[in-house]
Amino acid sequence: MIIQLIPCISPAQEQELNKLLDSLQIKVMKVSAASATYLVAVLKQEIDIRKVGELSGVADVHRLTDPYKLVSHQWKVDPTEIDLGDGVVINRKDFTIMAGPCSIESEAQIEQVVANLVKNNIKIMRGGVYKPRSSPYAFRGLGMNGLKMFYKACHAQGIKIITEVMQVSQIEPMYDYVDIYQVGARNTQNFNLLDALGKTDKPVMIKRGISGTIDELLQSAEYVFSAGNEKILLCERGIRSFEHAYRNTFDINAIPILKEKSHLPVVADASHGIGLRKHVPKIVLAGLAAGADATIVEMHPEPEKALSDGQQTLNFSEFDKLVAKINSIKEILM
Amino acid sequence: MIIQLIPCISPAQEQELNKLLDSLQIKVMKVSAASATYLVAVLKQEIDIRKVGELSGVADVHRLTDPYKLVSHQWKVDPTEIDLGDGVVINRKDFTIMAGPCSIESEAQIEQVVANLVKNNIKIMRGGVYKPRSSPYAFRGLGMNGLKMFYKACHAQGIKIITEVMQVSQIEPMYDYVDIYQVGARNTQNFNLLDALGKTDKPVMIKRGISGTIDELLQSAEYVFSAGNEKILLCERGIRSFEHAYRNTFDINAIPILKEKSHLPVVADASHGIGLRKHVPKIVLAGLAAGADATIVEMHPEPEKALSDGQQTLNFSEFDKLVAKINSIKEILM
Amino acid sequence: MIIQLIPCISPAQEQELNKLLDSLQIKVMKVSAASATYLVAVLKQEIDIRKVGELSGVADVHRLTDPYKLVSHQWKVDPTEIDLGDGVVINRKDFTIMAGPCSIESEAQIEQVVANLVKNNIKIMRGGVYKPRSSPYAFRGLGMNGLKMFYKACHAQGIKIITEVMQVSQIEPMYDYVDIYQVGARNTQNFNLLDALGKTDKPVMIKRGISGTIDELLQSAEYVFSAGNEKILLCERGIRSFEHAYRNTFDINAIPILKEKSHLPVVADASHGIGLRKHVPKIVLAGLAAGADATIVEMHPEPEKALSDGQQTLNFSEFDKLVAKINSIKEILM
Amino acid sequence: MIIQLIPCISPAQEQELNKLLDSLQIKVMKVSAASATYLVAVLKQEIDIRKVGELSGVADVHRLTDPYKLVSHQWKVDPTEIDLGDGVVINRKDFTIMAGPCSIESEAQIEQVVANLVKNNIKIMRGGVYKPRSSPYAFRGLGMNGLKMFYKACHAQGIKIITEVMQVSQIEPMYDYVDIYQVGARNTQNFNLLDALGKTDKPVMIKRGISGTIDELLQSAEYVFSAGNEKILLCERGIRSFEHAYRNTFDINAIPILKEKSHLPVVADASHGIGLRKHVPKIVLAGLAAGADATIVEMHPEPEKALSDGQQTLNFSEFDKLVAKINSIKEILM
Repeated sequence: MIIQLIPCISPAQEQELNKLLDSLQIKVMKVSAASATYLVAVLKQEIDIRKVGELSGVADVHRLTDPYKLVSHQWKVDPTEIDLGDGVVINRKDFTIMAGPCSIESEAQIEQVVANLVKNNIKIMRGGVYKPRSSPYAFRGLGMNGLKMFYKACHAQGIKIITEVMQVSQIEPMYDYVDIYQVGARNTQNFNLLDALGKTDKPVMIKRGISGTIDELLQSAEYVFSAGNEKILLCERGIRSFEHAYRNTFDINAIPILKEKSHLPVVADASHGIGLRKHVPKIVLAGLAAGADATIVEMHPEPEKALSDGQQTLNFSEFDKLVAKINSIKEILM
Repeated sequence: MIIQLIPCISPAQEQELNKLLDSLQIKVMKVSAASATYLVAVLKQEIDIRKVGELSGVADVHRLTDPYKLVSHQWKVDPTEIDLGDGVVINRKDFTIMAGPCSIESEAQIEQVVANLVKNNIKIMRGGVYKPRSSPYAFRGLGMNGLKMFYKACHAQGIKIITEVMQVSQIEPMYDYVDIYQVGARNTQNFNLLDALGKTDKPVMIKRGISGTIDELLQSAEYVFSAGNEKILLCERGIRSFEHAYRNTFDINAIPILKEKSHLPVVADASHGIGLRKHVPKIVLAGLAAGADATIVEMHPEPEKALSDGQQTLNFSEFDKLVAKINSIKEILM
Repeated sequence: MIIQLIPCISPAQEQELNKLLDSLQIKVMKVSAASATYLVAVLKQEIDIRKVGELSGVADVHRLTDPYKLVSHQWKVDPTEIDLGDGVVINRKDFTIMAGPCSIESEAQIEQVVANLVKNNIKIMRGGVYKPRSSPYAFRGLGMNGLKMFYKACHAQGIKIITEVMQVSQIEPMYDYVDIYQVGARNTQNFNLLDALGKTDKPVMIKRGISGTIDELLQSAEYVFSAGNEKILLCERGIRSFEHAYRNTFDINAIPILKEKSHLPVVADASHGIGLRKHVPKIVLAGLAAGADATIVEMHPEPEKALSDGQQTLNFSEFDKLVAKINSIKEILM
Repeated sequence: MIIQLIPCISPAQEQELNKLLDSLQIKVMKVSAASATYLVAVLKQEIDIRKVGELSGVADVHRLTDPYKLVSHQWKVDPTEIDLGDGVVINRKDFTIMAGPCSIESEAQIEQVVANLVKNNIKIMRGGVYKPRSSPYAFRGLGMNGLKMFYKACHAQGIKIITEVMQVSQIEPMYDYVDIYQVGARNTQNFNLLDALGKTDKPVMIKRGISGTIDELLQSAEYVFSAGNEKILLCERGIRSFEHAYRNTFDINAIPILKEKSHLPVVADASHGIGLRKHVPKIVLAGLAAGADATIVEMHPEPEKALSDGQQTLNFSEFDKLVAKINSIKEILM
C-alpha cells in the first residue's frame, strides 16, 4: 500500500493517520521524495483502504500486489522523466543517447569524445573513473582527478555526465561533478550503496545484476526511491547464460517487461549486452524497437587502444552511422 | 576443408582426386546437394590445399576453421535464399512473415487464418499437427488428417505450409503436404531425424535447442546439409535462463551472430521468444532491427480458446497492426 | 488420479467403471503394465474419488497433485526395484555400479573391461554403439555389429548390458542384446522414442536433458510408464550452466529431490557430471552421500586412447580404488 | 609471478631488487602478509625468473599461469589452515562445522543455540546481524547491539563467531566481536569491501557470487590476500540456474575444482545450496564426500518461527543427527 500525503500535512492530520494505522497494525516506512511524501507498507492482511483514503491528510492511497511498491506502474501511470537541467530530459520521446569511453583516460581523449558528441547533438557523456575489475592487478580508473578533468571538458560544452560510483564514501566527493550516478552490475544488490544514493537528489542509473532477475532490479530501485530519491533509471545490460559466443546475453525481453511493471525509464546498454563491436549497432536498434527510452553506448577515438572494453567500443565513424540510423527510424517506432 | 567438384566430374577425375586424398590421409564425406557436389573433411593436420585445387575435377577448394563446414559463411559469401516456388522466396530483402496458430484445430479455424493471411499479403502459414508435449496426457495434435485439411485450405489460396515433423517415419507421409519441415527445439539434436531430412529436397527450418548453443544449432544444420539438403533455415526461439518473468529468453544477440557465422537465413520466433502476447510485436520488431531475414508468429482467430499456446498468440487485429508496422520500417532497416 | 484395477477385472465391471467416469466427464488413459493395470486421468475439477473406489473392479484409487502421475511418489510409497534377472537387482541397498567405456571399440577392449568388472564384482557394463555426436563428421559408433560383439563377451561372464538407443527403428533389432535401454540427454524429450520404449518390457534409463528440469525428466518417465513399461531408471548427469571450469554442472540437489518426488531409482552419472577424470571419484561419492541408488561410470583400459570422452574416463586402477572406497562407506550412508 | 622476500630484507637489498624489476619493465604490487612479504606481478612477457631468484633479498620466486596469483595452488602446495585461537583450527582433518541461525534474534535464541553447539562439541557459531535483503521493507538485522549480545553469549562458552559484514564502515566497529568476517554472495565482487577486509588481520570467508564463476571467486580472494590478509575461506553456496525445484543449484563440482586450484580451505554451505530443510543433511554429506574442509549450516531452536530462512534451517534434533552421521564417516572419507 502507498499512502500519498497532502503537500502541507499538519501534525494533527499526521497523528490521526498514524493512530489509524496503529489500530490496523500496519507498519509504514515514511518516504519524503522531492515531488511528494509517501507512507509505504507491505500489507500482510486485507484491509479496507477507503478508511485510510477518507482521512484529511491523505491525498491518495493505492493498493499494490507487486513486491516493489514506489517503482511500480500499478500506482503511477505516467512514465517518469529524468530532467538533468538545461533542457536535457530523458524520456521515450527522444530516445536519449549516452555515449563515451569505458574509462576516462586523458584530457585529449575526453576532448575528442566531447567534440564528436557535440557534432552528433548528443547531450550526455559516459566515462568511468572508478572501475570495478575482477582482478586486483587491473587498471582501476583515474579516480577524482579523472572526474574533475571529465567535468571541466563537458561543462564547457553543456554536456551532462554519467559515471559509476562504487562505494558510499565516494558519493559526496563526486557530487559536484556528476549528473547521473551509475550503479554497476556488481553493485546492483549493494544495499548500503543504494540506500545512500537514495539520500542524494541526483538521478541514479541502476544496472541489472550479472544474473539479477527483473524483480530484483526493481527491488533495488525501490531501495533508492524508499530512501527519498525518485530519479531512477533502469538499465538492461545483458545477463549471464550458458552461451559464450558473445559476452553477455542481452535480455531484449526485459525491456517491454520493465516498461510494463514500472514507470521508470529503461536504458539499453548494448555495448555490454553483446560485447562485440561490429554487432553493437544492431542491438542498439533492437533495443529501440523493443521500447527502450534511452541507450548507453561505448565510443572511443581509437577503440583498439582503449584501456578497457575496447572490443565492444565503437569508433567515431561507426557511432555517427548508428546515430543517423536511429534518427531515421525513431519516430516511426515511438 | 570443402572441395567443390565440377558439375560433370568424370570417374577418372574422381579417382585421381581420391588417390590424392588417400595419399594425404584425408577422409572425406561426399555430399550431393542440388546445386553442387562437395567433399567435406575435418582436417587434423595442415595441408597445402592448392594441390587439391589444381586437379581437373575440382571446381573450388576452401579451408575452414569453423567446426561446421557446409553451413559456414567462411566459404559461401552469398546469403542462401529459400525458394518455395510460385514466387515465394525467403530472403533478407522482404522480411518474410510466417504466421498461424500453434495447433491446427479445425477447418473453420484454418479458413479464418488463411483469410487473414491473404488480407495481409502473407504467403506462408504455420500450424502444428504433431505437437511435442511435456506431458503424455496433453493434446498431441490432429496428425495426418489435420495436415491434409491444412493443405487443402492453403493450397487453394496459394499459401505455403510450414509444420513440425517429430520423427523419421513421418517424413514420407507428410511430404506431399508440406513446404517447409520444422524441427522443434526438443529435436534440435535428434541426429537421426536431421540425417533423414537431409535426404529430402524440401526446406527444413531448425529451431535452436532449449539450451542449445549457437554452434550446436549450426552443427545440427550441418547434419542436414551434409546429408544432401542445402535448403535450411535457422530459427532463434529463445533459450532457457534463470529469469522466469517470461517464457524463454529471446536471444537477440544470436541473430547477428548467426548471420555472421552462416550463409543460411535466420528466422525470429518472437512468440516462443517471450511467450507473452502483448509483448510479442515488440520482439518481432527487435528481431527485424537486429537483422533477421524472417519471422514466425502465432496468430489465432480467438487466442483465448486456442488448444495450445494461447497466451503467446496474437489475434487478427494485433497481427494486422504488427504487419503494418513492419511494412513501415523494414525498408529503412534493411 | 490413478485408478488401479483388480487383476482379473470382468468386462461388466469395466463397463460399470467407464459409465461412472463418463458421467463424471473424466477422460482416462488405460495403462497395462506388467504388475497391474491402471486408468490415469488429469483431473480438471474436484471429484469425490470414493465413488470410484467403491466399484468392485477397482483395487485402489489415488488422487495426485503432481503433474506426472504413475511415476509419482504420492501414490506408490515403496521404491521401485529394477530386476535384470540372474540376481542382478538395482536398488538402494547395494548402490549398484555400472561401468565401461563411452564407446564400444573392439573385442579386445570389451574383454579387458569385462575382466576388470568381474574382478570388482560389478554386474552391469555400459558401452555405446550408437553415439549421438554434435558434429556429423565425428565417430558415430560401431552399431549393431558392435552390440553383438558386446553382448557375446558380457553374456559369457554374466554381465548385463546398458547401451544407448537413439531412434525407434533401433529398438527391435537391439532387443535381444540389451538389458537396459539408455535414452541420452539429447533425447530426453524425444516423445516418440519414449512412447515406443514404453511398449517394450526391458528397463529404460532416461538421462536428464542437457537443460531439462526435474519435472520434465519425470514427465519423460511418465511417457514410458503410461505406455506400459514400469521399469524405469532416472539419471542425473549434470546440467548446462554459465560455469565452464568443468563440462556440466552435476546437480547434486536433484538426487534427493527426485527420490522425494518419485518411487523410481536414481542413477548418478558422475563422468558426464563433471567431465574431468581426476574429480570423477569425488562426485561419485557425493552422489552416494546424497542418496543415489546407483552410479554409472566411464572406465577404459587406456582412457588416453579412447575414441570418445577419454578426458572423463577412469583407468582400471582409478576405478578399483573408487570401488573399494564405495564399499567402505556405503553401509554407513545407506 | 610471486617474489617472496626474505623476512628481514635490508633497504639495499630491496633497492637492488627494484632496480632489476625496473630494468625488466615489471610492475609489482607489494603485499605484506602476516607470514611473509611478497611482490606480485602479472607478467606480460617471458622473463628468466632465475635472475630474480639469485638476488640476496629474495627467498623464493614462482612463475604462475593462473589469472589469480597469491591464492593459487601453483606456488603454495600446502593447504592453508585458519587458526582462530584457543585450539580452534579450520582444516581438512576435522571437517569443521559452523552452525547457527540465519539471523540473531534474541538473547534466549542465542543461548539455546550455544547450548546445542556445546553439546555437539561445535566451536563456531554463525548468525547474521546485518542482513542483505532484496526488499527494503524486510527485516535487516539487529546490527551492533545484536552482535554484542551474540559475542557475550559465545565468548563465555569459548565459541567463535562468524557473521556477515556488508560495508566498509562496519569493519572497524565489528572488529572486537568477530572471529571470521563473512562476505555475502551479493558482495563477492564488492571490491572496496574486499580491499578493506584485506587490511584487517581477521579471517574472511567469501561466498561465491549468485552467478559467480569459480575464477571470479578466486579473484575476489586475491583482492583480500593482495591487500595483506592471507586468512581466507572460500564458500560454495549454490549458483543460480534455470531449475526452480529448490533455491539454488549447489555446485558440488566447485569443491574439488577449488581445492585443485587454490590452497585455501573450502566451506560447503548446504543450507543455501539447496534451501530445503529436509534435504540439507544429504547435501552436507555430499560436500564432505566431495572434499570440503568445512561446512556452514543453519540451525535454530524453532525454524518455523525464524525471522529469516526458516525453510532451510535445521532444528536441534535434525542437527544432532547430522553431526553424528558426519562423525561416523569423516575419517573414512578424509
